[in-house]
Amino acid sequence: MKVQNYKRDGAISYALGVTVTIELLLRRPERVLSVLLHSALTDGDGYRRIQSLCAERGIPVEVNDKAFRILSQKENCYAIGVFEKYEDPPRPGRRQVLLVNPSNAGNLGTILRTAAGFGLRDLSVILPAVDPFDPKSVRASMGAFFSLHLGIYESFARWREDFPTLPCFPFMLTASRPLQRIIFPDPCALVFGNEASGLPEAFAHEGQPVIIPHGDVIDSLNLPTAVGIALYELTKADWSK
Amino acid sequence: MKVQNYKRDGAISYALGVTVTIELLLRRPERVLSVLLHSALTDGDGYRRIQSLCAERGIPVEVNDKAFRILSQKENCYAIGVFEKYEDPPRPGRRQVLLVNPSNAGNLGTILRTAAGFGLRDLSVILPAVDPFDPKSVRASMGAFFSLHLGIYESFARWREDFPTLPCFPFMLTASRPLQRIIFPDPCALVFGNEASGLPEAFAHEGQPVIIPHGDVIDSLNLPTAVGIALYELTKADWSK
Repeated sequence: MKVQNYKRDGAISYALGVTVTIELLLRRPERVLSVLLHSALTDGDGYRRIQSLCAERGIPVEVNDKAFRILSQKENCYAIGVFEKYEDPPRPGRRQVLLVNPSNAGNLGTILRTAAGFGLRDLSVILPAVDPFDPKSVRASMGAFFSLHLGIYESFARWREDFPTLPCFPFMLTASRPLQRIIFPDPCALVFGNEASGLPEAFAHEGQPVIIPHGDVIDSLNLPTAVGIALYELTKADWSK
Repeated sequence: MKVQNYKRDGAISYALGVTVTIELLLRRPERVLSVLLHSALTDGDGYRRIQSLCAERGIPVEVNDKAFRILSQKENCYAIGVFEKYEDPPRPGRRQVLLVNPSNAGNLGTILRTAAGFGLRDLSVILPAVDPFDPKSVRASMGAFFSLHLGIYESFARWREDFPTLPCFPFMLTASRPLQRIIFPDPCALVFGNEASGLPEAFAHEGQPVIIPHGDVIDSLNLPTAVGIALYELTKADWSK
């Protein structure tokens, strides 16, 4: 098949790498159009897993080195899953991560990986934002992307229409209540702003603002690190049972 | 001045970007050889700050667009601080982060930023590892690099000679004690392995192994996220006083 550079407004995207392609085949097999393999991948656990999953599901596999030159700048990428984009919005009544204007695909993917790890399967992104289906985001998630229910909303007001009663905890450097003193209701939404600019001040009135206290040697924590710390604190009782 | 691509075995490195250059000028002024500015940077707070810090300290400033083409692939880089590498090893008797074989410069820089934020100023890296002086690492630290005491050791055994009594807490997926149940002595060292392979099993005998529990949807947390969670838990009492 002919492949084209990823397009945000296109109908298809790509899972880059063996691990990510296997997650795609396991979690969203009905969306997979084909799997492309690099001619250098001829054996190994990953190769056999991909071949058997595709055979079970009748998914075409082809060797196509040219596709890798077009789609992957990374060296260690030997499999590409070609898939149709889909809608699978967050479920009501679940804990949720709400990302307002995230701008970096790698950061977004890392956040998706962490959220899945801590059992938060429901996330929303408020535009303008990086595209969650961007292959860089999907790859940085290590495939966790495919196990998540992820909504994209035009605005916070639009998101609120879908989740009118979900208590919000906006993470803001101007907040006074430290994370370690928060008692989170279940469910609730943890809300994070843009990497450079944080959340607009208006979010101080959308629930209980929270700060992760740190020294002034740095301006702020890296966004995926802040989300990771917040999700650890939110869920740690679940893991010590 | 003529600039050359960064070399790991060379004597100089580069602070890329206005923020990182200002941190260099504030924290390590005695190491700065010169500051290069892009011709597009002609005014603004950062520009004035750099000019005044360099004037105070007698550091030469020159406009040199060619240097940016050689040294910076990023678009939004308008200042480069040229500095001599230096030795400033971790201090005895302090809490420490010990990174065994980290392989990614961006991850290392993010970890340095987080450590500085949580008040851990002493870190060690065990070789083989990415070079902490790599401009990508320095840049990802947002300049926190310059406020840290950072040692590079040939082996864990060599590190142990310098810190013979510091209790170690190796973070391992095979550990059974969860982070939230650990009571850390002060000082102690938190030990983390390589992004892909983690710590060698031998570290299970070097102190109390710790795990950050998470679901099996993911294989592991991203390394900077895991370090961030551990440092948050280690230091959170300091911030709620």
